[in-house]
Amino acid sequence: MTGIIPKIILGSTSTLSGQTYLQYLRPVLENHFAGIKRLLFVPYARPGGIDHAQYTASAANFFETLGIAVDNLAAAKDPALAIKNAEAIFTGGGNTFVLVQQLHQLGLMSALKQRVLEGAPYLGTSAGANIGGISMGTTNDMPIVYPASFATLGLVGFNINPHFISGRAAPQHMGETRETRIAEFLTQNDTPVVGLPEGSWIQVMGQHITLEGSQPALIFERDKQPYELPVGSELNFKK
Amino acid sequence: MTGIIPKIILGSTSTLSGQTYLQYLRPVLENHFAGIKRLLFVPYARPGGIDHAQYTASAANFFETLGIAVDNLAAAKDPALAIKNAEAIFTGGGNTFVLVQQLHQLGLMSALKQRVLEGAPYLGTSAGANIGGISMGTTNDMPIVYPASFATLGLVGFNINPHFISGRAAPQHMGETRETRIAEFLTQNDTPVVGLPEGSWIQVMGQHITLEGSQPALIFERDKQPYELPVGSELNFKK
Repeated sequence: MTGIIPKIILGSTSTLSGQTYLQYLRPVLENHFAGIKRLLFVPYARPGGIDHAQYTASAANFFETLGIAVDNLAAAKDPALAIKNAEAIFTGGGNTFVLVQQLHQLGLMSALKQRVLEGAPYLGTSAGANIGGISMGTTNDMPIVYPASFATLGLVGFNINPHFISGRAAPQHMGETRETRIAEFLTQNDTPVVGLPEGSWIQVMGQHITLEGSQPALIFERDKQPYELPVGSELNFKK
Repeated sequence: MTGIIPKIILGSTSTLSGQTYLQYLRPVLENHFAGIKRLLFVPYARPGGIDHAQYTASAANFFETLGIAVDNLAAAKDPALAIKNAEAIFTGGGNTFVLVQQLHQLGLMSALKQRVLEGAPYLGTSAGANIGGISMGTTNDMPIVYPASFATLGLVGFNINPHFISGRAAPQHMGETRETRIAEFLTQNDTPVVGLPEGSWIQVMGQHITLEGSQPALIFERDKQPYELPVGSELNFKK
């Protein structure tokens, strides 16, 4: 397997406020998917309960501007084979529990991981980025279905909190802040967590894992104060 | 079992901004726990990872002002027996996944339900209120541990979203609003959801289930627009 370089982009969000779908990532994706003609879309996270075909169509609308055709994994007769043969893969956002429940139920988690490690360029946004981590244990989503396991792809040696935002939902609101929630995760798990704000993404190029985009990330490790890393930093901590 | 009247209070939060622990509920709890000398505290939700004894001590600090002694369920040699013999029960907030994981692992979910339906006054706040619903599927918490099931006490015929707050975390933030999250729950489940804002609680007195406190609740039912119910309303919808 010498010469194989995993190429992965894990984005906090698909869309920035005031922009169109994937607009902020477009220059990066032109490079990331250079030479790709067909992309396999993983639509299972179904934001707002949208159906798989409609969700795939919205991804296809964007990717046709890059000259890339998009196939719907949920429409494949043999989804494991579709993954095995995929030139490139994109997992869209939505509800992480629904996404992970489907991937485990269909037995696709290891197939996905293997294909990405073989070098098929991968893009995940929001829930699709979260599953790049070791577990889905730092998702923001509601547990609307019960997955067979919280284990995810483990493409990086840490967990990801997408849409990271600091502080309270409102000045008087007493619900836990994002920081408190992630700190609670670390009382039960010894997995570092990258709090990934909107506008930033994690780029994996072989052994190099870097923070890219416009915002610093907040890093949470057990028995440490959370600390900020600027764009361009290597994210080389491991569980 | 004639004459037995379940008495339940499910509060959105334990504490209001600028107040002390349970302060806003104190007049209600004086009545709810009238005649009670000992209360069994369920500390498993462990906010911030606090240990069970410390968490119980903080509850005991409040309840001693009502002349009620507090026992730590986590310190009981036979927790099912402790529940069976409890005069009254209070489940504190924290992480719902940790709470539910512990209750299932220790086989206590049905014991708790039975004791409450036998008439032992129950108080739950935040995570402790969420588990009064049919499932924990509308918690706001992170899945930091994997429970054996998401099923909860089902003391009421609907689900509860504690700390309900409308709208975005910040004007430019693209994470799902609470309304979107609950709407996604209803794409996968046919259980009505009460979005319970801080300052309000659900009171069960036998067959009567009412909204109490200071804020209207937002009700989510499948194939309906969410609608507001004012304080004093009966919450008599069922799955």
